[in-house]
Amino acid sequence: MSARVKQPVLGILGGGQLARMLALAAAPLGVKVLVVDTAADACAGQVAPLRIADWTDFAALEKFAADVDVVTFDFENVPADTAHWLAERAAVFPNPRALAVAQDRLAEKTLFRECGLQTPAFEPVDTREGLDRALATIGAPSILKTRRLGYDGKGQFRIKQLSDADAAWNALGANAHGLILEAFVPFERELSVLAVRTRDGDFRIWPLTQNWHTEGVLSLSLAPAPDVGALQSRAEALARTLAERLDYVGVFALELFVKDGQLLGNEMAPRVHNSGHWTIEGAVTSQFENHVRAVLGLPLGDTSARGFSAMFNWIGELPDATPVLSTVDGHWHDYGKQSRPGRKVGHATVCAQDANVLAERVGDIARALKREEQAAPGIGALSG
Amino acid sequence: MSARVKQPVLGILGGGQLARMLALAAAPLGVKVLVVDTAADACAGQVAPLRIADWTDFAALEKFAADVDVVTFDFENVPADTAHWLAERAAVFPNPRALAVAQDRLAEKTLFRECGLQTPAFEPVDTREGLDRALATIGAPSILKTRRLGYDGKGQFRIKQLSDADAAWNALGANAHGLILEAFVPFERELSVLAVRTRDGDFRIWPLTQNWHTEGVLSLSLAPAPDVGALQSRAEALARTLAERLDYVGVFALELFVKDGQLLGNEMAPRVHNSGHWTIEGAVTSQFENHVRAVLGLPLGDTSARGFSAMFNWIGELPDATPVLSTVDGHWHDYGKQSRPGRKVGHATVCAQDANVLAERVGDIARALKREEQAAPGIGALSG
Repeated sequence: MSARVKQPVLGILGGGQLARMLALAAAPLGVKVLVVDTAADACAGQVAPLRIADWTDFAALEKFAADVDVVTFDFENVPADTAHWLAERAAVFPNPRALAVAQDRLAEKTLFRECGLQTPAFEPVDTREGLDRALATIGAPSILKTRRLGYDGKGQFRIKQLSDADAAWNALGANAHGLILEAFVPFERELSVLAVRTRDGDFRIWPLTQNWHTEGVLSLSLAPAPDVGALQSRAEALARTLAERLDYVGVFALELFVKDGQLLGNEMAPRVHNSGHWTIEGAVTSQFENHVRAVLGLPLGDTSARGFSAMFNWIGELPDATPVLSTVDGHWHDYGKQSRPGRKVGHATVCAQDANVLAERVGDIARALKREEQAAPGIGALSG
Repeated sequence: MSARVKQPVLGILGGGQLARMLALAAAPLGVKVLVVDTAADACAGQVAPLRIADWTDFAALEKFAADVDVVTFDFENVPADTAHWLAERAAVFPNPRALAVAQDRLAEKTLFRECGLQTPAFEPVDTREGLDRALATIGAPSILKTRRLGYDGKGQFRIKQLSDADAAWNALGANAHGLILEAFVPFERELSVLAVRTRDGDFRIWPLTQNWHTEGVLSLSLAPAPDVGALQSRAEALARTLAERLDYVGVFALELFVKDGQLLGNEMAPRVHNSGHWTIEGAVTSQFENHVRAVLGLPLGDTSARGFSAMFNWIGELPDATPVLSTVDGHWHDYGKQSRPGRKVGHATVCAQDANVLAERVGDIARALKREEQAAPGIGALSG
């Protein structure tokens, strides 16, 4: 009997909750994980070896690249230079070009349109005068956003009327990476598609997820999104086209608006995504496991839903776990982080075989935790 | 907003695959894990901090006890003295008395009978003459076993006829902890019940599991065990009585024989158990998560099965993962161990909503891996 082949080592840049959940999914596959983060208390360090390094500490990254077989990200704002540099030394998935496109709202939306995915009207903005020109085209209400490094509603300014232009410029005009003005779309619902593609082009999506945000941060997800009809196959075709254009490997999320029954592209996250956390218990294979499988060159797992799932996001601090733990098919996820306003510290997923039963379970938990407002839109959608 | 309560720390004595899967289940609950093992390459060390110490290194154990909130075991042969010593310094679940009973086949079977669970006939054996006396009562075929430190068929000698007595004594007579002679029972099937009890007496079992062994080691499990009828509630009542008698906290397994439609107690494992590995994907809450919940004082999760599950045990070395990873609802578990004859190095669980579909999936995997013999009894039971 021969000794086993060496276990593959997956390097993850960024050690937050996404890296933590990737590491938990990697272990059963026999994949070792090595995390690198700038913070010594990065929460993935509780479940995998953690190295502390700055994204531009190339001596540390050189050693990191030598110690891993594949590199991936928990975090889309890794500097493009770092990603390119690493790609010369290790297998990096997704590839740096895909990362770069997803880091730039202008490149991203341009690509969406090239792939046949409509978007809200947008114009690049580089100067104060450019903002006026863009406003003349787009009008108000509209949203001025930084092209890069924005997430969870950060780096955005809502222009309600044209006279808000000065205030918007004062807030964001100093940004070195440029801005983009986007039309405000009074959408009917927000959906996301979680998709995964392998090195050899196998491609799958999970059932569409419906999302609700509070102050720019995801607060509740429901999956499969109710009553999507032909949007599921439309989203699948668009996500596939996008993935093929980028030669994308791994999981990504596409945030979509639905307006007049049509899909509009909002943004792409080149990584596992908060709106896919329900897949841990609610799908046959989770986004985390399929990302690990894809970047390691393993076959993909089935992406079917096991029933109906709702995910509560916990922002700032964790509520009492008891109501979730006491609920049938209620699942608790504490990321092991310190409380901090606005920080994602955990989530809970509740599943059921029946939509009405799920609505009851979600309602019971919401009442026990005084989270009725957070749960209400989901209960409405389930009961609709 | 206040800082969070300190994360609880679960100490695990023993760092094998059970500790590894406990650690993976503990993380989403926000529970940190600290593992202690005698081996520097203990596989749980890939997913949790690992300290190296001998079970009688009380200086190291003193520090371990100070650094954890609750102590549990991945391994039932922790010396009783060590367990008692730890229990004076930390909350230890299951309690040392339960551990001691389960470590001794004589105490264990005596307790089974006190709880109303019949067993094969047995007699204690301490001398060569005692073996003759026991054989006069029990007859042959029978099995001479060490009272302590036996598992997976180790420490056993099959007495086919009375003239085997000398050989049996030569093989096992030197054992310092005494022996037990048990009648050989030509049972119809082997079942196990996985049960869990909390600190405040909440008690649940998972659906009964049917098991098949090869050379004394579990090779295949099927859950829920087909056609058990009233045996499910009978097993639940017996397991509950046993747990209450021992004031047991955590998960335990009871290995049972079925003979003439009646349950006979074979042995008790005071820990999560190989025959419960299917619960990771096949039950609403896994044995690992419920063990962590129970010993930490959290509410139990639902123990219902999600459908039908089959588990292949991988002994010695791992087969190719591809056929399992390519199967719908096929799940791979590589423990990150080196290959070694007889060693448990991984398992695979395959699930389906329908027993016939599960039989097909198991058959496909078995053919691809040339494991038809391992799978055959399960396929037979599913198709029966």
